[in-house]
Amino acid sequence: MKLLEERIRKDGVIGAGNVLKVDCFLNHLIDVPFADELAREFYRLFRDCGVNKILTIEASGIGIACLTARFFDCPAVFAKKSKTSNMSGEFYSVPVDSFTHGNTSTVIVNKAYLSPSDKVLIIDDFLALGNALNGLIDIVEQSGAQLVGAGIVIEKAFQGGGDAIRAKGIRVESLAMIESMSPEEGIRYRGE
Amino acid sequence: MKLLEERIRKDGVIGAGNVLKVDCFLNHLIDVPFADELAREFYRLFRDCGVNKILTIEASGIGIACLTARFFDCPAVFAKKSKTSNMSGEFYSVPVDSFTHGNTSTVIVNKAYLSPSDKVLIIDDFLALGNALNGLIDIVEQSGAQLVGAGIVIEKAFQGGGDAIRAKGIRVESLAMIESMSPEEGIRYRGE
Repeated sequence: MKLLEERIRKDGVIGAGNVLKVDCFLNHLIDVPFADELAREFYRLFRDCGVNKILTIEASGIGIACLTARFFDCPAVFAKKSKTSNMSGEFYSVPVDSFTHGNTSTVIVNKAYLSPSDKVLIIDDFLALGNALNGLIDIVEQSGAQLVGAGIVIEKAFQGGGDAIRAKGIRVESLAMIESMSPEEGIRYRGE
Repeated sequence: MKLLEERIRKDGVIGAGNVLKVDCFLNHLIDVPFADELAREFYRLFRDCGVNKILTIEASGIGIACLTARFFDCPAVFAKKSKTSNMSGEFYSVPVDSFTHGNTSTVIVNKAYLSPSDKVLIIDDFLALGNALNGLIDIVEQSGAQLVGAGIVIEKAFQGGGDAIRAKGIRVESLAMIESMSPEEGIRYRGE
């Protein structure tokens, strides 16, 4: 999505250790009119798939997930990060390693909010190694719901998570796919 | 707001220790078409105040804040909960006690995202003792921005936080104000 690619080039900050900071429009300050255009694009991509539930993970996925759910006129569920791995039978749960935070948390969704009758679109702001997305896919599988696919704002394609998930036959649509980046040479998108 | 009061009565679960669980439409699953009506109401209440920025706190405020920001056609900033209190000069920060989680965290906002030229509307899902809201107000004051007021989805008025903040001259608009609640007697709203 050209609009997004240009915005990342203009406002994104490339840091050490493959970190791309987009705090100024996506992760801390959310440029909502802009994010609403991203949500509209997710709707365009998945509008014919019968989506009746959006799934994301706290915290930074929640905003874009809600804006996307508005286009689909459906609810959004956000998986929570729990400190305890000892959950009752009330929750679907899965351990997820965080690339950003360097720790592991248990990610949970109340069983009441995902069921076999759901057609789920996963939405998230970032995809790198795929840890969070694999966790959410696992939860959808536990629930018996149908996974329609995943809509990602920014994929750091060079970290391989997205392509590994696509190789399993899961549809992953990323609005910007970064093939390489460095403070010196900037960003190259897939296809450039 | 009648629509919300009825929804809380229908779907809210009153637990021990003054806890009201609205996970099924606001805090875990977000009924986005419904939440968008709440956002529209915040817009109606504050539309003439020149709001150019929404401020909320992660995680459960983010959804409603983004939906509200869409009506105002402005950005939303979400304050982050930090594990370290030893922040650099890059951030506004304030300690906040959590009623829900029984701990204290440092809440931070990057100084780049709030400035004296901003007219800020704070949005949050819950107001009880007022700890989170007081923290956000403190951050707005640190930034020199103008605080237009606060829009709260559910105020547990019997815990006093909202009225204490109103007594300081700050406009607080809560879409549902719970005057008392118990598992036995249910919910009584202010004015009933």
